[in-house]
Amino acid sequence: MILISEQDYMNLAFEMAEKGKYQTWTNPLVGAVIVKNNVVLAKGYHHQFGAAHAEIDALQHLDDLKQARGATMYVSLEPCSHFGKTPPCAKKLAEVGIKAVVVGQKDPNPLVAGRGLQILRDAGIEIKVLNQTGGLNVKYNFFYQHQRPYVNVKYAMTLDGKINQQANQRSIITGKEAYQDSQQLRAEYQAILVGENTLKVDHPQLTVRQIAVYQQPWRMVLIRDVDQLKVEDYAFFKTADPILLLTSSVTRRQWPNNVEVISDRWTPNKILTLLAKRGIQSVLVEGGSQIHAEFLASGLVDEINVYLAPRIYGATGLPAIFNPTQLPYQSNAYQLVEKMELGPDMKFRLRRV
Amino acid sequence: MILISEQDYMNLAFEMAEKGKYQTWTNPLVGAVIVKNNVVLAKGYHHQFGAAHAEIDALQHLDDLKQARGATMYVSLEPCSHFGKTPPCAKKLAEVGIKAVVVGQKDPNPLVAGRGLQILRDAGIEIKVLNQTGGLNVKYNFFYQHQRPYVNVKYAMTLDGKINQQANQRSIITGKEAYQDSQQLRAEYQAILVGENTLKVDHPQLTVRQIAVYQQPWRMVLIRDVDQLKVEDYAFFKTADPILLLTSSVTRRQWPNNVEVISDRWTPNKILTLLAKRGIQSVLVEGGSQIHAEFLASGLVDEINVYLAPRIYGATGLPAIFNPTQLPYQSNAYQLVEKMELGPDMKFRLRRV
Repeated sequence: MILISEQDYMNLAFEMAEKGKYQTWTNPLVGAVIVKNNVVLAKGYHHQFGAAHAEIDALQHLDDLKQARGATMYVSLEPCSHFGKTPPCAKKLAEVGIKAVVVGQKDPNPLVAGRGLQILRDAGIEIKVLNQTGGLNVKYNFFYQHQRPYVNVKYAMTLDGKINQQANQRSIITGKEAYQDSQQLRAEYQAILVGENTLKVDHPQLTVRQIAVYQQPWRMVLIRDVDQLKVEDYAFFKTADPILLLTSSVTRRQWPNNVEVISDRWTPNKILTLLAKRGIQSVLVEGGSQIHAEFLASGLVDEINVYLAPRIYGATGLPAIFNPTQLPYQSNAYQLVEKMELGPDMKFRLRRV
Repeated sequence: MILISEQDYMNLAFEMAEKGKYQTWTNPLVGAVIVKNNVVLAKGYHHQFGAAHAEIDALQHLDDLKQARGATMYVSLEPCSHFGKTPPCAKKLAEVGIKAVVVGQKDPNPLVAGRGLQILRDAGIEIKVLNQTGGLNVKYNFFYQHQRPYVNVKYAMTLDGKINQQANQRSIITGKEAYQDSQQLRAEYQAILVGENTLKVDHPQLTVRQIAVYQQPWRMVLIRDVDQLKVEDYAFFKTADPILLLTSSVTRRQWPNNVEVISDRWTPNKILTLLAKRGIQSVLVEGGSQIHAEFLASGLVDEINVYLAPRIYGATGLPAIFNPTQLPYQSNAYQLVEKMELGPDMKFRLRRV
């Protein structure tokens, strides 16, 4: 196949970007392709948080850097303008003599937003912005557009809407295909939040298993009295990855190095503000029913993922979204965007309308 | 196509039987085919409650009744032995000189069970029983095997397991395809049962619409204080079809002719015993959450039908199966037997394992 259109080259850049999946942490996925006389000279992508940006990676894949002179670069995201972990890409592109840059989308990060393009323009490089994301960086984009993390409420439930067989009992609801999918889901989020009961009843580890990620998501628990928690009872505390305990009590205890405890009168909004300050762009809320109800009532949920098992748990089970005070919620705020079979189970993805 | 095997002829009889669907009330669906020298001479079925049985209908479709002499009849159900609304078929088959009868299944109705076959055998007719139901008469068979009606708990719920947006508010959860399917479902049951709240909040008519049925299902409401009910407020009472009010109070009122009121301390078991005595073979339990919980806890549910809408109603909604006293239920008692798309919604059918 001979690649000819601009769109073909950009699609190739999107494909390259995808290769960095799960590895770039809070950085966006970016891919780049260098083309001259309708020939792809080099391809590159952002491999990992802290590693070379896609543009630089592509340049490094040229047989000779001189080939860059007069070439066009297709890059899925606006080249950066700032000194971060690496020098600014826009400057480098000018330096090596790139003639034209076709950009997928502008960078919403205020450190870059438009400045990368300005550097290129100032250097006399032709610029074209396609305004295409290629479906990449949904949470990254959301974060900079809304100044808060993207929120996904996720649960597994039965065909009578229950998340366990009995209150205070852990139930394995779905099968291995759903488990694998939920691991992938975790890998796509930078933080995971659960309520106190979920920690105490389910004893989750809240880690990503089966998939190699650059960094484990921050693990957060909303917990009333943190001092009563018997740390030694939980596998959760035995892993070295970051833990954030959001409590309303004042802690009187020494905590392991990976555990941070913050006291406040927590609301969904306050939690998201905290995460935003820390640069966390996405959070997966994994239960239980009350925390789901609180987040829905707050209007701060962007996506809902439901794993559905063809079982019935009956009246003793805990409903998926439930709160004794019947928190209000504007229904019909979500619509189905994806439905799939996962072995015996199903998955439904709903997004805010 | 030339029909040759016994199975082919029996399948034809099953097909014929299906034509009586929704019309035979408490009678079984039955089809019959008359064959001689590998030629189908006539076909028949039980058209309607009170009308000719399938065997007689087939005989009536012969060009000349003399053709029956030496022929084989394939009939989906054992020919009857008793004088009911029509004279016994087994005797008639002997009379007209049928040589052999191939039967799909024996009749579980104790009025017949084996006696029909005995009459044929005594008349020197060859008999073969295939022990096949062709998927017909599930509830009829169940009723005579278990001496109680077949129970189906049916509800429509959201992707958070809710059957309405708020307690005491009616919600239209699913779309028109699900509505049509649920009408078909009602047409397949001889009684429909709801709880007091469902009557008062949803104001259902509980009739079969869109499908012509021989008789509307009995409409039953479990209701604490029947005397406080304002009959004039409900479209339910404006139709002439039978209504059964199961109450725990003693009624002091005159009721319309089509309304029967029975006082007792009702339990699921007592309700089914009453229906069994009346010869009602199937009941569809259409909510609310509490009556669902009670039936599930009773262990008397044979099938569960869930219509699932891709919506979220949140914490103010009523769970599909719910009871403040958390009635116990042996979970994993059901398994999925069918799953289908109904426009934007889905339907799941679970049967007792």
